[in-house]
Amino acid sequence: MSELHRPFNRDKGMLVVISGFSGSGKGTLMKGLMDNYDYYSLSISATTRQPRPGEQEGREYFFVDKDRFIKMIQNDELLEYARYVDNYYGTPKSYVEQELAKGKDVILEIEMQGALKIKAKYPDSVLVFITPPTVEELIRRLRNRGTETEEVICKRLEKATMEAEGIEAYDYILVNDNLDKTVKHLNYLIQDQHMRVSNQIRFLEDIRGQLRANYAEMNK
Amino acid sequence: MSELHRPFNRDKGMLVVISGFSGSGKGTLMKGLMDNYDYYSLSISATTRQPRPGEQEGREYFFVDKDRFIKMIQNDELLEYARYVDNYYGTPKSYVEQELAKGKDVILEIEMQGALKIKAKYPDSVLVFITPPTVEELIRRLRNRGTETEEVICKRLEKATMEAEGIEAYDYILVNDNLDKTVKHLNYLIQDQHMRVSNQIRFLEDIRGQLRANYAEMNK
Repeated sequence: MSELHRPFNRDKGMLVVISGFSGSGKGTLMKGLMDNYDYYSLSISATTRQPRPGEQEGREYFFVDKDRFIKMIQNDELLEYARYVDNYYGTPKSYVEQELAKGKDVILEIEMQGALKIKAKYPDSVLVFITPPTVEELIRRLRNRGTETEEVICKRLEKATMEAEGIEAYDYILVNDNLDKTVKHLNYLIQDQHMRVSNQIRFLEDIRGQLRANYAEMNK
Repeated sequence: MSELHRPFNRDKGMLVVISGFSGSGKGTLMKGLMDNYDYYSLSISATTRQPRPGEQEGREYFFVDKDRFIKMIQNDELLEYARYVDNYYGTPKSYVEQELAKGKDVILEIEMQGALKIKAKYPDSVLVFITPPTVEELIRRLRNRGTETEEVICKRLEKATMEAEGIEAYDYILVNDNLDKTVKHLNYLIQDQHMRVSNQIRFLEDIRGQLRANYAEMNK
């Protein structure tokens, strides 16, 4: 744990959803969290889309065919799933539950559609939306990554425009203007959620029990 | 600002309520916040109780008589007020509003009764409850500060027992086990609340406007 965050009555692991605009650098942030702190676990999504060059089974995704994916839905093996274009994406439930039980904070890097489903099912989860440092920079990154066609840029702008409408569903907006600082900041932000009163029910019960016992003792 | 917290679209100042058990060291924490960061303002309560030796008008409290206090209530000059034993305590509204307008985060160090009223009136306020590091330490501090009579200890236990029942109304529990660390931690915790989506409405509107404009431009 970082020195600011002593392991004070860490009741249980927490679900953390990270989403962000294209170009926000969220993938690199996730890697920074995993490399620097040992109390996070990164959930790997299942997808029916084809692996791209360089992608590894179980690292970027679990690649499954459509029949298998539909079985996973039917067997309630997914925490959430969504369909984009012609492909399914979903979060396998067993890994998440196993890691939460170990006390790990489980990071889901998923799209907005899935994020909303997680928040509805797990109100104590923390949803963080990552953005580039300024609106100008966001637009610049969406428009100009180098080689894309006008059509690709247009689709990306459309997606960002729709995403921007949904950000109210998130708890926090985090600006990524410097990787190292933002990794630290994201870590603080997440760890502080363990001090939410709703995550300290055990500590509260302990306080109450002992105060009542002491008070009764004095009034005997 | 601390290096982790860049002044990113700081829409406005925030109301921060700090309460805590007797012996939690919250007074010293407040002094630490004020001494180390220039973006906080500490609200001074008005009270009808007599000044104690060493207390200064306008430092610990504004000391007013009962007639004046009742006038303040009638003129809606108080953000909240409460009565303890035979004395009134209240938060003068004008100072708080003036400091919030300047962009300062205004700290109210008040009792639970007032904290609940603030949260009801200002749902975006942040309520932090400070505790000693362990329940054992809490009990030790309540029972044994040296010179108090059994009666005083008993009253203090009774008060803490009642307070413990109300902690769910707070947002965060913060453990004070080391003054310097806890001052830093409290600062992070408060500053992070500026990144709550509800405090970034202006930034969101800005993003949305520019995305829509760019998208429309491309589809002309």
